[in-house]
Amino acid sequence: MRYSQLFGKTLRGAPKDIKLISHKLLYQAGFIRELTAGRYELLPLGTRVYQKIIDIIQKEMEAIGSQRVVTPTLHPKEIWQKTGRDQVWGKNLLSLKDPRSEQEFTLSATAEGLFSEMVAGFNPSYKELPILVHQFSQKFRNEKRPRGGLLRLREFLMKDAYSFDADHESFAKTYKKFYDSYLKIAKALSLKVIPVEADNGALGGDYSHEFMIEAEFGEDTIVKCNSCDYAANLEKAEFIRNDVNKDEEVKPYKIVDLPTEVATIKQLVKHYNLPAERFIKNVVYKTSGGKIIIATVTGNLEINPRKLVRLLRLEEEMEDATDEDLASFGAKSGFVHSWGYKDKRITYIADESVLKAKNLYGGHKTETTDPINVNYNRDFKADVIGDVASVPEGAKCRRCKNGILKLIRAIEFGHVFSYDDFYSKAHDVFYIDKDGEKKLILMGAYGIGIERAMGAIVETYNDSKGIVWPKVVAPYLVHLILLSKGDPKTVDYANKIYEYLLEKNIEVLYDDRVDVSAGVKFSDCDLIGIPYRIVISDKTIKENKIEFKKRFEDKVEMLTKEELLVKLLKQLPHTVAR
Amino acid sequence: MRYSQLFGKTLRGAPKDIKLISHKLLYQAGFIRELTAGRYELLPLGTRVYQKIIDIIQKEMEAIGSQRVVTPTLHPKEIWQKTGRDQVWGKNLLSLKDPRSEQEFTLSATAEGLFSEMVAGFNPSYKELPILVHQFSQKFRNEKRPRGGLLRLREFLMKDAYSFDADHESFAKTYKKFYDSYLKIAKALSLKVIPVEADNGALGGDYSHEFMIEAEFGEDTIVKCNSCDYAANLEKAEFIRNDVNKDEEVKPYKIVDLPTEVATIKQLVKHYNLPAERFIKNVVYKTSGGKIIIATVTGNLEINPRKLVRLLRLEEEMEDATDEDLASFGAKSGFVHSWGYKDKRITYIADESVLKAKNLYGGHKTETTDPINVNYNRDFKADVIGDVASVPEGAKCRRCKNGILKLIRAIEFGHVFSYDDFYSKAHDVFYIDKDGEKKLILMGAYGIGIERAMGAIVETYNDSKGIVWPKVVAPYLVHLILLSKGDPKTVDYANKIYEYLLEKNIEVLYDDRVDVSAGVKFSDCDLIGIPYRIVISDKTIKENKIEFKKRFEDKVEMLTKEELLVKLLKQLPHTVAR
Repeated sequence: MRYSQLFGKTLRGAPKDIKLISHKLLYQAGFIRELTAGRYELLPLGTRVYQKIIDIIQKEMEAIGSQRVVTPTLHPKEIWQKTGRDQVWGKNLLSLKDPRSEQEFTLSATAEGLFSEMVAGFNPSYKELPILVHQFSQKFRNEKRPRGGLLRLREFLMKDAYSFDADHESFAKTYKKFYDSYLKIAKALSLKVIPVEADNGALGGDYSHEFMIEAEFGEDTIVKCNSCDYAANLEKAEFIRNDVNKDEEVKPYKIVDLPTEVATIKQLVKHYNLPAERFIKNVVYKTSGGKIIIATVTGNLEINPRKLVRLLRLEEEMEDATDEDLASFGAKSGFVHSWGYKDKRITYIADESVLKAKNLYGGHKTETTDPINVNYNRDFKADVIGDVASVPEGAKCRRCKNGILKLIRAIEFGHVFSYDDFYSKAHDVFYIDKDGEKKLILMGAYGIGIERAMGAIVETYNDSKGIVWPKVVAPYLVHLILLSKGDPKTVDYANKIYEYLLEKNIEVLYDDRVDVSAGVKFSDCDLIGIPYRIVISDKTIKENKIEFKKRFEDKVEMLTKEELLVKLLKQLPHTVAR
Repeated sequence: MRYSQLFGKTLRGAPKDIKLISHKLLYQAGFIRELTAGRYELLPLGTRVYQKIIDIIQKEMEAIGSQRVVTPTLHPKEIWQKTGRDQVWGKNLLSLKDPRSEQEFTLSATAEGLFSEMVAGFNPSYKELPILVHQFSQKFRNEKRPRGGLLRLREFLMKDAYSFDADHESFAKTYKKFYDSYLKIAKALSLKVIPVEADNGALGGDYSHEFMIEAEFGEDTIVKCNSCDYAANLEKAEFIRNDVNKDEEVKPYKIVDLPTEVATIKQLVKHYNLPAERFIKNVVYKTSGGKIIIATVTGNLEINPRKLVRLLRLEEEMEDATDEDLASFGAKSGFVHSWGYKDKRITYIADESVLKAKNLYGGHKTETTDPINVNYNRDFKADVIGDVASVPEGAKCRRCKNGILKLIRAIEFGHVFSYDDFYSKAHDVFYIDKDGEKKLILMGAYGIGIERAMGAIVETYNDSKGIVWPKVVAPYLVHLILLSKGDPKTVDYANKIYEYLLEKNIEVLYDDRVDVSAGVKFSDCDLIGIPYRIVISDKTIKENKIEFKKRFEDKVEMLTKEELLVKLLKQLPHTVAR
C-alpha cells in the first residue's frame, strides 16, 4: 500500500481528553476514529490488524474442532425472556420493535439463548455430542461508561463459542479444550494472560474463568495469592476477614454524642482515634424491581456490588441508591442505619467482617448521636450474611490460609463459562441418550472481544514514539521509506523494491510521499509501529545498499537487496491481512 | 470434516410451505435454518460457502484498490435525517433509542451517510482522491415481504463499497472500475449476470446499474431489447406507447349507461367488445406524509409505483390506498375518477399512454354510468404527465425505436450507484483542490449481498437430486463416502485416505457413518452437492482402487490413489474456507 493512497493518515497530536495510551496511539497513527461514545470505525490499518486477530482465533477454533456458523443480530425477545435475561441485563440491552409487525427484538449482547434453541432444533443424539460451534458477530452492550478507545465498547465484534455436552465428564474436557485454546490464542497474539476465577455476571450459570492481561490502566482488578496459585477477579475473590478487636471484652451498647459534621469513615477515624475497621459502614442500592438493599461492612472494606448481586441471586438490575431513594424510606446520605427501618422493600445484608469485629461504632447514627460497642447478633441482625466485600490489598488468602493477596489492574481478554443446565432447562435443550431417553444438555460459552484484544496489544506494546506491533498482527510487515531530493533514480529504485517485495508476498506500507521531510517520515513510521523499517535514499543508492531497522531495536543495518530478502523471507509464512 | 460430527445434517423432506428451490435445497441439505421471517442461521456448511464468497469479493476489491474498513451497525439517527433518508426508507428502517441517554440510533440499512461523514472528517486533498473503501457488514432492511430462503432477507451481510472522487471524469473511471469488478466477481462465482439500467430507489442520487441473474422465480423483472443493447430493470425501463385508435376522428364526450357489475378492465373489454387499451384505468396510492395520488393509464398497462415515486420526486413512503383511504375523498374501489375530486390532498398523474389514445372509455364511472369518447386535454387534465407504466411484454424499444422488448425474471446480484453530490452536499464532504479551494466530492456506492449470492448460485446450479456447487464456492471439494459391511480394513483405508487428503490441503467432507445404508449416503452426497465424490468400499478395496465421480457427470471412474491425487491436485489452488 502506498502511504499517499492510504485512507486514514497519522496526526501529530491527539485531543487532550484522550487518556488511554492505546486510544491515543491508535487514533494518532490512523487506525481508529470514534463515531459516537463506545462505537468506533476501524480505518484500513486498524482493519488489517482486526482481520489478523480474527484469523488467529479462527485457526485455533478449527484446531479444537469448533464449527463456524453465522446467526442473526436481532433475536426475537422471547428468547431473552425465557431465562429472565432481559431483566438481568436491563439497560445494558438494546431492544426495538418492528414497526410493521410489532414483533420485539433484542440486539445480540450474547447468544446463549439463540444457540440453545438452534441446537435444540436438531434433537441431537448422544453420538453427535459434544457440539462445539462459534461465530464472529457484532455484539451490543450498552455499557454505562464506555471508555475511550477499544477497551470497553458498546458495539464490538466477538468470537463467541458455545458447547453442548452430554455429561459433566465430557463437559470438563470441552471446557479444558477452550481454556487451553484461549491460552494458545493469547500466546499467538503475544499477550501474557493470567487465568482467574470469575463472576458469571448477567450471563448466569455455574462458574467461569477470565483470561486477564496485566495493564496499568486496566479497568478490572484481579487478586493473586503470593503463596498458592489462587487468582480471581475482584468481583469473585475471597479472603479471610480480620478478627477485629478480638481481645477486648464485649461492652454494653451505648449512645454517645457526635457532631453532625463527623460523617465519613476518615472523619470518624480521626474523631474517635480508632482504626477504620472499628466502624460500621452502610451502602444502599436499589433494584429495577423496586427492592432496597442496605449492605453493612466494617469501615476498612468496600462493598462489592457483583458479590452482593450473586449472594442475593438478584434477577434484576441493581444500581446505587440516589438521595431520593434514601429519602423515600427516611434516610439520608451519611446517616443510613444498619437496622430498624419499617420499609418492607428493604433487605439488610451484613458482610462477614461485621461478625468478626467486637464493639463496633456506628450503624445507627443520627444528626447528633452515634451508638458505640455495637455487636452483631446482640444489637442487630441482618437478613442475609455473606461475603460481599472486595478484597483489600494485603488481605489473607482464604484458599491456602497463609498467603497474602495482591491486587493487580488488568484487562479482560477472554472469558469462559460453565452454565451446567441453566440455559438447557429454560430452552428445552435435550439430547437422546443411548437408552433412547431425553436428557438435558450441559452448556458452556467462550468469548473473546476482537477490538479489545487489539487495544490490549497496543497497551502492552508501545514506547514513547508509538506502537510496537508484534509481527503476527502488524498491519504490514515492512515499512518502506523513500527519501529523495528528487533524484528519479532513487524514486525508481524504491518503486522497484516495493514491487519486488509485493511479488514475494511480503506486506509493505510504502511511504512514497515526496513533499514530506525525512523527520516526519521517520516519526510516522515509529508511530504506526510496523516491525521492519527499510529506507531507500539518494545516499543508500550510492552505496548500492538498503537501510534496515527493526522497530524494537536501535541498530541500523546496511544490506544488499539479496540480504534484505533473505531476512524478510525468514519471517514468512506470516499471516496475511484480507 | 467427519459427517458424523458435522453440526447440521441433511433431511429427507422439507416443509410444504417452502417454495423456492434454493430455499428447499439449502434447508434440506443442512446449510441454513430460519430463525424468524427474513432472518436466517447459516450452519457450518452454509458458513463455508459464505466465507468463500466473501473471500472472492474481497480479493476483487483489493484488485481495484478498495481499502477495507469496519464501521458500527448503529448509526446516530441525525446522519439519516440530514438527507431525509429516514422518511424515504420509512418502515423499512429499524431504529431504537438508547434507554440511558435517549440518543436515537438507526440500524445500518446502508451507510452512505456514515461513510460521507467519515471521509469528510479527514478533509482530503485532491492528491488523496479517489478514495475507494468497503466493508462487509450486517445490513437491516425491514422488507415488507421477505421471501423464504436467502433471496430477500431482513438481515444479511453486504459488501458495501463507497467511492469519493474530485470530478466527473475521475468518477466515471471509478464507477467503471467497480462495474467491471462486479462482472468479474459474478464470473468468479460462476454466475452469469446481465447489467441493466436501474432505479436508485430510496438511496437517492443520480443513476445506477444492477447486475441481474436470470432466474425463473426471481422477484425482479428486467426488460431487454431484441435489437439494440438496451436492458433495464422494469422499475426503470422505457418503451414507446402505442397510438391507440389513431385513425378514428375525435368524437364528442358522452355519458352512457353501464351496469354496476361491469367493473374490471376484463369485464369492460367484454361488455363493450373493445381492446383493453381503449379504457382508462385509475390506481390510487397514499404517502406517509398524507398525499393521495391518482395515477391514470390505459387499461392494457400497469402502473409502476417506483416510476411514480421517481417522477414525483417523493421523499416519503408510498403505499397502495386502502378502501378507507378511497372513502375519505368520496371514491370507492372500481369507481375512482381521473378528475373532479375537491380534496386538496390529491395529485392526478397521467401516464403518457393516455395522451396517445383517442376516444377513451371511462375515467369518471358511477354506479350506473360511464363516460365514453374521453380525450385528454379536451375532457380532463392531470397535474403531472409522465412515464409511470411498466413495460408490457412485446412493447417497442424507446432506445432504438425498432426492437421489441422482452421481459425476463431475474435476481439482483449487485447494484452500483452514482450519487453525484447528493450526499456530499448534505454531509459537507469537501476536498481541497490544487488551488486551495474547498469543492464538493462526487460519490458512488456499490453493493453485493452475500447470502443472496449464495441463494442465486443454488437457484442456478441444481438438479433433481440436489445442489451442484461450482467448485470455487463448494463447502468442500471432495465428498468421501465409506461403504463397508464392517470390514475394519475398509474403514482403516478410508480413514487413511481422509487423513492423506487433509495433509494435501484438500477439503474433504468424510461420510464416516457406519449405521447408514449406501443409498442414504449417495443421496445425501447428491443433495449436499460437493463437486467430487469418492467411494471407498469393501469392493473397491479388493480391486485396490478408489471410485471417483463428478457431481455433474454420470461417469464413474476407478482410480488408484495416485491417479486420484493427481486429479484432485489439478483443482488446486482452490479457495479454502475459514
